[in-house]
Amino acid sequence: MKELEKYLERAMACQTALVLLEWDNETLAPEKAGARTARVQGALSAAYQEVMTDPHLYERIQAAQQEELTEVERAIIREAKEEIRQLSCIPPQEYRAFQEMVAESTRIWAKARAANDFEAFAPTLEKIVACQKRFASYRAEKGQKLYDVMLDTYEKGFDMERLDGFFDQLKRELVPFLHRVTESCVWIPDEFLDGDYPQEKQRELAEYVAKYVGFDFGKGVLAVSAHPFTTNLHNCDVRITTHYSSRVDSSLFSVIHECGHAVYEMGIDDELTQTLVGQGASMGMHESQSRFFENILGRDEAFWVPLYSRVKELFPEPLRGVGREGFVRAINRVTPGLIRTEADELTYSLHVLVRYELEKLLIEEDLDVRELPGLWADKYEEYLGVRPSTDAEGVLQDIHWAQGSFGYFPSYALGSAFGAQMYAYMKGQMDIDSLLRQGEIGQIREFLRVHVHRFGKVKTSREILRDMTGEDFNPSYYVRYLKEKYGKLYQIEE
Amino acid sequence: MKELEKYLERAMACQTALVLLEWDNETLAPEKAGARTARVQGALSAAYQEVMTDPHLYERIQAAQQEELTEVERAIIREAKEEIRQLSCIPPQEYRAFQEMVAESTRIWAKARAANDFEAFAPTLEKIVACQKRFASYRAEKGQKLYDVMLDTYEKGFDMERLDGFFDQLKRELVPFLHRVTESCVWIPDEFLDGDYPQEKQRELAEYVAKYVGFDFGKGVLAVSAHPFTTNLHNCDVRITTHYSSRVDSSLFSVIHECGHAVYEMGIDDELTQTLVGQGASMGMHESQSRFFENILGRDEAFWVPLYSRVKELFPEPLRGVGREGFVRAINRVTPGLIRTEADELTYSLHVLVRYELEKLLIEEDLDVRELPGLWADKYEEYLGVRPSTDAEGVLQDIHWAQGSFGYFPSYALGSAFGAQMYAYMKGQMDIDSLLRQGEIGQIREFLRVHVHRFGKVKTSREILRDMTGEDFNPSYYVRYLKEKYGKLYQIEE
Repeated sequence: MKELEKYLERAMACQTALVLLEWDNETLAPEKAGARTARVQGALSAAYQEVMTDPHLYERIQAAQQEELTEVERAIIREAKEEIRQLSCIPPQEYRAFQEMVAESTRIWAKARAANDFEAFAPTLEKIVACQKRFASYRAEKGQKLYDVMLDTYEKGFDMERLDGFFDQLKRELVPFLHRVTESCVWIPDEFLDGDYPQEKQRELAEYVAKYVGFDFGKGVLAVSAHPFTTNLHNCDVRITTHYSSRVDSSLFSVIHECGHAVYEMGIDDELTQTLVGQGASMGMHESQSRFFENILGRDEAFWVPLYSRVKELFPEPLRGVGREGFVRAINRVTPGLIRTEADELTYSLHVLVRYELEKLLIEEDLDVRELPGLWADKYEEYLGVRPSTDAEGVLQDIHWAQGSFGYFPSYALGSAFGAQMYAYMKGQMDIDSLLRQGEIGQIREFLRVHVHRFGKVKTSREILRDMTGEDFNPSYYVRYLKEKYGKLYQIEE
Repeated sequence: MKELEKYLERAMACQTALVLLEWDNETLAPEKAGARTARVQGALSAAYQEVMTDPHLYERIQAAQQEELTEVERAIIREAKEEIRQLSCIPPQEYRAFQEMVAESTRIWAKARAANDFEAFAPTLEKIVACQKRFASYRAEKGQKLYDVMLDTYEKGFDMERLDGFFDQLKRELVPFLHRVTESCVWIPDEFLDGDYPQEKQRELAEYVAKYVGFDFGKGVLAVSAHPFTTNLHNCDVRITTHYSSRVDSSLFSVIHECGHAVYEMGIDDELTQTLVGQGASMGMHESQSRFFENILGRDEAFWVPLYSRVKELFPEPLRGVGREGFVRAINRVTPGLIRTEADELTYSLHVLVRYELEKLLIEEDLDVRELPGLWADKYEEYLGVRPSTDAEGVLQDIHWAQGSFGYFPSYALGSAFGAQMYAYMKGQMDIDSLLRQGEIGQIREFLRVHVHRFGKVKTSREILRDMTGEDFNPSYYVRYLKEKYGKLYQIEE
């Protein structure tokens, strides 16, 4: 095992360097550095692959499996084998060609989006789909469907069979419920959220709230980037970004969201960090924590009891006459829209539903990519009641497909559902409402650390859910949570 | 050669990642990240060494030498062989032990300096000296003196024989000259340089002047760190830092200094960057460029003709009643002091002289480290006319020895002398004074790019000097430059 760890330490060091290069690229690197820095990234990424596919590493894995191992060591070996399998089954020259294709395709996508012209992107998308299907076929186990292979990359244990049930329930219950919300005569004013919110003050608020929810600035950094994200070198160096605009809630909730990711990474056990199991369990489990902090806690009225006076102090003018209750109603206002990243808590998963259904068609039913814009618009109209009039605000809005990421979107919706299931369980264990009112969010965070964060990738998301709540994944909690919260806000009788 | 370049690309990628980690550590990384990030640095550094000492690499070097090569390729092979020799002659476990010792010794040094207690550092320094002497003996060619081995690491072609001549001339000419300066009855007021200089405005000035001297923000970053430095990932990503205080000239001239380093790195040929010869030629040549911009150009009255009105605009209050001439006199005021990094242009090389003489004694004459504080104080008194009353402002001021860097200091003084020799030559080629007055510094910078910067490490510092000025290194230009400039300022008759 010690021998093995030496190899893995080098592999992890390459990964950490790549993480830092990417962070630097998004937050600081000068504009003209890109092409040359890409060579460095290419070389480090090749070095990583070479370490991981070195036959000596595989021999050491075989040898280590003969030893008596701890649970963590077994998990590291499991991850190493999985990673080797993923890296080995795609021929290196095909993988390099794909990486070049993606570098090109994201540029073409960005241009097509700016020009609002899906046709300009369609041939590229077609090639990417074909390539991803081929890669999935290399990785597929006998009889495994291609989209299931893709889904498995991001979320173990959530294949189409399980996700069909999940998304069908969302469609069946939330689409008609949303209809009642939009027809409700409750009017929620929120125009005061947009106004004269000086960036320096927003930054002050961001730091204040980040600290409050548990972001440790001794182990973390807050910076600015075009799109908010979280990254980490290890559990003592976790970094979040935000983006300031004239809407105070835009940066505020992006910071709470990223803090959810960050608190997760900071809470991973020292024993695990800097190993192959030293990251969050899955995309969905990560999203569960970010959305738990952002929505379940951050948009709860109780959350703002100890904090709202600080908000008012920072922005006396734009919030003149706006009490806590009005503020909390405003940050929960439901507005079905066209853009996923701007969606409210209730409509968010319906945006994901559209993408899930279209990805299934693309991968499993050989849908012609040229049919995407029309289907996209129809589904938005059916589920959300809004219809994009352009490709830019429709099918071209997300970068994921241009990057070859198929099967990634469902994690976004799963995360919300994981969080709601945890929330339902936790309410039986502690008085979340009064803890929030008293400013004692630390106890809630600690509960999540003990039951979720510390395990890193040692457990899968389903194992975490089961061990914590005593129940396998159950999306009913999510639907119930949304209906209860928004039924109350919009005065909808059951 | 192509085969060889693949190896070197990976080695360079590890180095670039290490550079970025170090930059990040000095400018941004959270406080508690250090220990874990050090593991990443250790692993990358080991990966670098492994690539460089891989027998396959050596075979490829042998093979490439049979090919017909360009001048650049020959230089790359020369550097690769030199690097392999440096890495191979020290047993890996001794080198690792040394790295651990240095991590420890810099901590001990920092503590000793804070406690103003050389005795607490002496046993550590003794060990470092012994270790560095042992390493030098491994690297020495037959009959080569140990201090010459060390000097050669930083500046090829400058052994004790050559440096003795250089420093003797400085001592012989500058020590009595400084005496006349300090006895001169010319009084230069400079108290206005310290005052209410808001940091945000200092930053604005820093960016303005950096752009003016040729720092391309499309290929560079300006940040803040405890001590100013320059680093680079390649010629399209060059980064400088500064540190703001209440003294406006402190940050201003540190920025011009670092810009000199940065303009050098930005000017290295595209063909060379990201190879083993893609950095500046030597420590001394680098320092020549930073000091050329900082002192020879930046402290010249003509330099401020197009810029001073901007300075006044930014700081109307503290500079009220201070004209350009008074400002330029103030930034050239000579004040013999105890601290090298705060020294003025005239006394700077005398600080280096002290260190050179003591290093020679330590390495070549087995000087007992306990004699250092006394000798240090005596030499400062003799050469600079000031005597440290504490170790902190004396022998403990620099980190270099704690890091095991012996033979590094002379480069600081050589850099100034290289610059003065170039300056003397360039004045025969262009009207520097009127170019500066007209704000046409670009032509001066371009001349340096063509004759110095673009060659990277393909030429040694002496080759660059010779090819540019038609003459080998000649320190007389430096002495003459200083005597002329400060003779005029302090009204000293020849």
